[in-house]
Amino acid sequence: MSSRAFTLSELAAQVDAVVDGDGAVEVSGVNTITDAEPGQLSFAHNVKYYRFIPETRASALVLDLETDASGRPAIRHENPYLTFARIIDIIHPIERIVPPGVHPSAVVDTAAEIDPNAGIGPLCVVEAGAKIGAGTQLVSSVHIGCDVSIGEGCLFHPGVRILRHCTIGNRVILHAGAVIGADGFGFAESETGARKIQHIGSVEIGDEVEIGANTTVDRGMLGPTRIGRGTKIDNLVQIAHNVQIGMYCFLAGQAGVSGSTKIGNGVILAGQVGVVGHIELGDKVMVGAQSGVAKSVKPGTVVFGSPAREMMQAKRIEASIGRLPELVRRLAKLEKRLND
Amino acid sequence: MSSRAFTLSELAAQVDAVVDGDGAVEVSGVNTITDAEPGQLSFAHNVKYYRFIPETRASALVLDLETDASGRPAIRHENPYLTFARIIDIIHPIERIVPPGVHPSAVVDTAAEIDPNAGIGPLCVVEAGAKIGAGTQLVSSVHIGCDVSIGEGCLFHPGVRILRHCTIGNRVILHAGAVIGADGFGFAESETGARKIQHIGSVEIGDEVEIGANTTVDRGMLGPTRIGRGTKIDNLVQIAHNVQIGMYCFLAGQAGVSGSTKIGNGVILAGQVGVVGHIELGDKVMVGAQSGVAKSVKPGTVVFGSPAREMMQAKRIEASIGRLPELVRRLAKLEKRLND
Amino acid sequence: MSSRAFTLSELAAQVDAVVDGDGAVEVSGVNTITDAEPGQLSFAHNVKYYRFIPETRASALVLDLETDASGRPAIRHENPYLTFARIIDIIHPIERIVPPGVHPSAVVDTAAEIDPNAGIGPLCVVEAGAKIGAGTQLVSSVHIGCDVSIGEGCLFHPGVRILRHCTIGNRVILHAGAVIGADGFGFAESETGARKIQHIGSVEIGDEVEIGANTTVDRGMLGPTRIGRGTKIDNLVQIAHNVQIGMYCFLAGQAGVSGSTKIGNGVILAGQVGVVGHIELGDKVMVGAQSGVAKSVKPGTVVFGSPAREMMQAKRIEASIGRLPELVRRLAKLEKRLND
Repeated sequence: MSSRAFTLSELAAQVDAVVDGDGAVEVSGVNTITDAEPGQLSFAHNVKYYRFIPETRASALVLDLETDASGRPAIRHENPYLTFARIIDIIHPIERIVPPGVHPSAVVDTAAEIDPNAGIGPLCVVEAGAKIGAGTQLVSSVHIGCDVSIGEGCLFHPGVRILRHCTIGNRVILHAGAVIGADGFGFAESETGARKIQHIGSVEIGDEVEIGANTTVDRGMLGPTRIGRGTKIDNLVQIAHNVQIGMYCFLAGQAGVSGSTKIGNGVILAGQVGVVGHIELGDKVMVGAQSGVAKSVKPGTVVFGSPAREMMQAKRIEASIGRLPELVRRLAKLEKRLND
Repeated sequence: MSSRAFTLSELAAQVDAVVDGDGAVEVSGVNTITDAEPGQLSFAHNVKYYRFIPETRASALVLDLETDASGRPAIRHENPYLTFARIIDIIHPIERIVPPGVHPSAVVDTAAEIDPNAGIGPLCVVEAGAKIGAGTQLVSSVHIGCDVSIGEGCLFHPGVRILRHCTIGNRVILHAGAVIGADGFGFAESETGARKIQHIGSVEIGDEVEIGANTTVDRGMLGPTRIGRGTKIDNLVQIAHNVQIGMYCFLAGQAGVSGSTKIGNGVILAGQVGVVGHIELGDKVMVGAQSGVAKSVKPGTVVFGSPAREMMQAKRIEASIGRLPELVRRLAKLEKRLND
Repeated sequence: MSSRAFTLSELAAQVDAVVDGDGAVEVSGVNTITDAEPGQLSFAHNVKYYRFIPETRASALVLDLETDASGRPAIRHENPYLTFARIIDIIHPIERIVPPGVHPSAVVDTAAEIDPNAGIGPLCVVEAGAKIGAGTQLVSSVHIGCDVSIGEGCLFHPGVRILRHCTIGNRVILHAGAVIGADGFGFAESETGARKIQHIGSVEIGDEVEIGANTTVDRGMLGPTRIGRGTKIDNLVQIAHNVQIGMYCFLAGQAGVSGSTKIGNGVILAGQVGVVGHIELGDKVMVGAQSGVAKSVKPGTVVFGSPAREMMQAKRIEASIGRLPELVRRLAKLEKRLND
């Protein structure tokens, strides 16, 4: 996939790093430290992987400023993981997937406004009133509903569906099968069963948001569901109607957020977390995997468990639970002593 | 989106409500009580929102028969939420999305029977033997398998897939990416590993059912998987083979029901609930969020937790768990006193 | 659906079973023991269903070698479930869904290599460099990315998406909406927020793997994500980047496996299980429903709970938890006695 070899000096210069050792060494690919072969560059960014440094077959490593390279040349930077990510993009430049223009098999309404530099791939549908910005790419079978507004430089993978009136910022990545703007799950009790409440709200997604495969983000009932700039959402996550998510959050796989909940900036939800509706999670809250958050959480708090509790308390409770059978025996023994 | 203004009297008359105050006041849109602007109608249907009544900028409110409107005109009805839902549909009439007829880009088998008033949108596939009733709309990229039978007035959003032989009632709404009739997860042990069991059953979905985005409902192995009339299912829910769900149930996001389980009428599963296979949940059972139901549950019971227990017991246990570290200390103290 | 009647002798001969009773009895369909009608064959393979044998209307049953058939003719085999599965395929032969060749509405790059006996259904997309083997069927709206390699005899249901460079073995079944090869959820911290790490790895799927509807399998960052031969994955499951899953595993609905975790052969994850990243589950590990696996698990171990513990311990803890409110009362009583 890579077209040519790069010297370490050449790479280091482009990522503001320094070369420790022979800067003329050449690499033409990247790999993990355990699988790398001669001619490849690898990295180690945490202590767990340092033990592989002496034996790796990689020609060079990306490391922090201190870690011993076992005599191998190294590109050094205080943030080696970020540096390695940048180097991947130099050795394997990201190519445009969809050329500018509309594929003849796409079905595009004459009342859609598509920038000439946008790429509309095969079998996409773009409805009336939709606007698509420069450089945005729709890979294949993407549905863009009426009056949807999409910024520049976005990449929507096969089978993404964005329904009417939603607004998407710039450089947004939506993975295959993501659904943006389905109706929220809202019904009113009536004498003849649940009556559907028409959802006239929308979804607003900020710049640099990334949303995973088959994830669903529902439209608001009256106002919008919002996902703030730079927030990253993994696969199979459910975001219900009227949820407000701040900037630079991470929501891991299969997490779910119920209706009207507000999530601040820099919040992290681990995998399979559930958050009930109508509560608030403050800035920089972190929620451990599989936790169930049933009450609002103050900024900066780390919570865990179902129901989620502050981390220290949750850990104490978890430790106590592990000792429960022993506690039962000790209690019975005490009772016996007192009764004897 | 709204075409014109409506007087409160005009709206109230259409929804069998009464006007309290000046019925000539006009509104041309709806909004939440906190975001509403002059010219808009809002509502408050529970005590949590009453505190916003004095300061809302809405021109009028939908309220129950008693709640004070702070001098503002109000449309009053004993069920204000339902009344507001009805008024949304008057101010924002639901428009037909797909015009009658078959879009030229759709691939429709000559042996399919499509009512002239059904709308088959762009890039849909309809296989041989499928029947589609009057007024049913397939928005785009919908797959209707062979011999599938679909009633009248249904709305299937982009990317819905209904596989062979399934039966869908009238006025059913399927959200984007929902898959109806994939094979159940059934295998027989053999000397050469798991052998697939062919699933010749189907899925039968009743009238007025609504199914969320990217939700999956598997076909039965021999007989059908069934979802009863009026049941509403949220996004990313998994319904396994041969499950029987009654009428007027609610299944919230990311819930899952394992094979052959029977769920009665009016059952509510909250978000991320899991139900094991081959059990029965009686009518009007309610299951709290993230619960795991491992045994049959009697009608009318509210259960919670993993494993799910009757609500009062579950709450007592949860309270005890919260006090566990304290109990451990108290037990150690007693032991020390007895040993001294 | 079945074309003709079969005698029990004829069926038994084809599946290496024996007839107990009148081998000339004819059946023309299969059904469950409770729903079967005269002319149909049914089965009972575990004790739970034996009580239905006396009253079933089925003309004959598939049973093990001992179970009493209540006077009905029976096809007997030591593995009746497997035998019944084989007979379903005789009575209802599996038909080819997509004829050989490329449907005119499909968009196939001239640089794709498609076996003349493969079937590319309507509205599929096949990109440059993709290879598709003999007998493989793409039902409709399937996306095959550039340089994807697919073996023989596969069946990909509507809306399956396989992204660039992935490798799929022979006789693989992918259900509707499954996404193979979306980018992993990997970011490096930077001064301007999370920076996306380009994922240049792929997904490698072995022979006879089956993957459920709307399930997602992410590509590796540098190396591949792997799913071994014969492994079966249910609907709405999330497999993160660089996960390695062995052969003949079962992953039930809504389970999730985080990045870089290694799962051995013959492992079973029940529904809604979560497994954290960077751990190892040994061969034949079994994980109970809704469990959260936070540490590596040794081969052959059965674990349960969140956090998952060895089954016996987990059961003891669960029993103790059920008695917690009683324990609290007993402890208070002891304290009172000592204080009096």
